[in-house]
Amino acid sequence: MSDHGKDHGTDPAVPADVPTTVPEPPYYAVVFTSRRTDDDPDGYSGTAARLSRLVRDVPGFLGEDSAHTPGGLAISVAYFRDLAGIERWRQHPEHLAAKRHGREHWFERYAIHIARVEHSHAFQRS
Amino acid sequence: MSDHGKDHGTDPAVPADVPTTVPEPPYYAVVFTSRRTDDDPDGYSGTAARLSRLVRDVPGFLGEDSAHTPGGLAISVAYFRDLAGIERWRQHPEHLAAKRHGREHWFERYAIHIARVEHSHAFQRS
Repeated sequence: MSDHGKDHGTDPAVPADVPTTVPEPPYYAVVFTSRRTDDDPDGYSGTAARLSRLVRDVPGFLGEDSAHTPGGLAISVAYFRDLAGIERWRQHPEHLAAKRHGREHWFERYAIHIARVEHSHAFQRS
Repeated sequence: MSDHGKDHGTDPAVPADVPTTVPEPPYYAVVFTSRRTDDDPDGYSGTAARLSRLVRDVPGFLGEDSAHTPGGLAISVAYFRDLAGIERWRQHPEHLAAKRHGREHWFERYAIHIARVEHSHAFQRS
């Protein structure tokens, strides 16, 4: 039904603090950049962890990368095989509820860029 | 010659620690995710700051977002109007030299995703 989990960013051999494995193009990237409020950081962290687990079960999900400068910008990039996967995730009830709560409490600003990846490559020190 | 600097991420009214202003699609995003070595962090920081200044003069450059989890992943996303802008930057002599030095010294792993942004939107707390 999908190639989810095969040779991709969900590979358990790849630790979370290194870039996710690069899929074969074309695929899609959802870039989410945000600046948070000081409101309810524990609630945010718990929800973010929960969403990171849920998204792995979305058909077409390929992996994600996240980074957060303390006191500054956070960036998450989620990779999907196609727009249908992004749409499934966008309409997931828990994801919808989290976004609504996020706009009310957690986010000062955010931006979302949905993009079709045409080229990619990876470097790993030998 | 280009719309560089107009109503975009290089807008001096937008502080560096919030998401850059979302351009009108289509545009391109270069997602660079990396895990650094412990080698020469000061040299890396100086070069990164220098490159961030240089890229602003590349025709077609629209802005960039960066985040870095201490001891973990760094993500930079640079936005360009078109692939020609990305190619100009890719071939910039100082950028080429920095990438070569980076592979030898600064990076444990990295991945680059070049993507055409088809949809985007921004949220700002009122």
